Amino acid sequence: MNFKITGTGSYIPNVVTTNADFGQHEFYNLDGSSFPQDNGTTIRKFKAITGIEERRYLDNNLNTSDIAAIAGQKAIEDAGIDPETLDYIIVAHNYGDVKLNSNQSDTVPSLATRVKASLRIKNPKCVGYDVLFGCPGWIEGVIQANGFIKAGMAKKCLIIGAEALSRVVDKHDRDSMIFSDGAGAIILEAKDEEGGILSHETGTYSFQEAEYIYFGKSNHAEATDDVRYIKMHGRKIYEFALMNVPNAMKTCLENSGKSISDLKTVFIHQANEKMDQAIIDRFYKLHKLTPPENVMPMTIHELGNSSVATVPTLFDLVNKGKIKDQKLEKGDVIMFASVGAGMNINAITYQV
Amino acid sequence: MNFKITGTGSYIPNVVTTNADFGQHEFYNLDGSSFPQDNGTTIRKFKAITGIEERRYLDNNLNTSDIAAIAGQKAIEDAGIDPETLDYIIVAHNYGDVKLNSNQSDTVPSLATRVKASLRIKNPKCVGYDVLFGCPGWIEGVIQANGFIKAGMAKKCLIIGAEALSRVVDKHDRDSMIFSDGAGAIILEAKDEEGGILSHETGTYSFQEAEYIYFGKSNHAEATDDVRYIKMHGRKIYEFALMNVPNAMKTCLENSGKSISDLKTVFIHQANEKMDQAIIDRFYKLHKLTPPENVMPMTIHELGNSSVATVPTLFDLVNKGKIKDQKLEKGDVIMFASVGAGMNINAITYQV
Repeated sequence: MNFKITGTGSYIPNVVTTNADFGQHEFYNLDGSSFPQDNGTTIRKFKAITGIEERRYLDNNLNTSDIAAIAGQKAIEDAGIDPETLDYIIVAHNYGDVKLNSNQSDTVPSLATRVKASLRIKNPKCVGYDVLFGCPGWIEGVIQANGFIKAGMAKKCLIIGAEALSRVVDKHDRDSMIFSDGAGAIILEAKDEEGGILSHETGTYSFQEAEYIYFGKSNHAEATDDVRYIKMHGRKIYEFALMNVPNAMKTCLENSGKSISDLKTVFIHQANEKMDQAIIDRFYKLHKLTPPENVMPMTIHELGNSSVATVPTLFDLVNKGKIKDQKLEKGDVIMFASVGAGMNINAITYQV
Repeated sequence: MNFKITGTGSYIPNVVTTNADFGQHEFYNLDGSSFPQDNGTTIRKFKAITGIEERRYLDNNLNTSDIAAIAGQKAIEDAGIDPETLDYIIVAHNYGDVKLNSNQSDTVPSLATRVKASLRIKNPKCVGYDVLFGCPGWIEGVIQANGFIKAGMAKKCLIIGAEALSRVVDKHDRDSMIFSDGAGAIILEAKDEEGGILSHETGTYSFQEAEYIYFGKSNHAEATDDVRYIKMHGRKIYEFALMNVPNAMKTCLENSGKSISDLKTVFIHQANEKMDQAIIDRFYKLHKLTPPENVMPMTIHELGNSSVATVPTLFDLVNKGKIKDQKLEKGDVIMFASVGAGMNINAITYQV
């Protein structure tokens, strides 16, 4: 018995926000100091590093659980399964539902319950829970589902990653330009077919790294309220990721029994283009190789970093033939990999 | 190979709040209407139904993750294991860390990461994640850990339930008197010993029930802000629980291969004394019996309802011989059971 992805789905929000839309923002550093250059320069540098030109935000009336349900519904339809036969609905996120102009995370009931209610699934044996694991939460949800199937606790699981970072950004923080909203989902099933999940790898690095991504006050020193926002120490994260992600990917690949030459596509968390490029370069360098062309499809230019949603969204787009020069065929060996708050790192080797 | 609990721990907060401390609160119903009787009467009725006389709140400087770490540390010491050998730290909660006088839930990094950092565990292969599953979250975390051990993904897991409901209550809601703070934890290990987890059962009921426990505005109609608090439809929950929890417990017991006469102790979520009593009565009635004396130890009178923390705290207290007329001995068959936001229900049959 193997563990196969039988359906994918995603939801790309409607509101397009371009880099130019940040032209009038007053940006400050984490220490409250202002930027020495004008916003035009800040934005050009930002784009050169992250690759991000525009990002997507939720419509005002939508919440994270709403788009999680849409992505989930699409994955169910793509798999052609009866939703009542699902054993688990696992929703990875980090901030719950945050309504527009609110600063409260709403996580009761769980987003998985809201998705299940929205999909009108009646069967109580379909268990819905949320997993919090930073940006790698969706991949971790897949690893957990895989464990439940292996343990005989499940046969069909819906795993969703959904986030609306637009609701938790500090407009005085340049990093607010990185973050976006989105949702992606897959159906994972026990199947008597070749391939599927071949190996997985996870690490939690908290000894020094716990607060590299955190919840903190506005960078605007004159902010008088105590409202907190998503914050990160970009330089430390970059160094941490480069030090640890390629090794985790290498271990994961080795444990799959496949070789680097078998690997066709790496679906990596869309965190920052320069960082992702450095990770893939070092991963291949560990095998004394350079990355082949098109091995790492990217959506960050148009979609930004939607946390848990980037990997399943990217995978859905490639799976549906919507990314240029990217195609998946039966037998292809691929990898999912992510890094984020925790700091957590994970990877899965998968054969289509 | 079996799945045994090798250590327990809990943290009972210091601040004792008595029913009399609510004497001057202005209570309103969910619809904003005021109570027809004086507070003395309201509080007497409240105590008659829920059994709660006092409850515990966190010290002002502490957060949920702090007490989760204390309970976790105690469980590690009780099990006598090297914390570096843990494969998972699973933290069940529902609201994250909510600082005093804040209304923001802080869940980035995850509470599991904070606990791991606080325990000074270095090993990155010790994976920390949070599970959101309403009050049954701690039992569900144990079921997940059991699955990971079965699947060969883990050998030793720390599962913590921690919550600080004092930080999310509406003082104008009579139900605020129900809620309290606390943390409990166990170590679950793969062991070549008799007994351990014999069966488990979980259900998510969201078709009609998703919003029975929710995040809503203050009952005070004149509240002008949009701050939201923990809210529940008590009567609906009572009827739902009575309809579904005894059946889930019966199925769980049947699947364990043990009979009702083997069952020594039921550790049930401390939600409301009358409801818990009605559940245990109906559970035994389903077996054409009445509940034996001392089958259901209760802490709700002094500790209130601390959500995910009630079951592991109660189990730790009994395990350590701190509850009158309660004792666990090798070979005893016991059950854990819970119900809460989702609406979720779960149960575990366990042999000591």
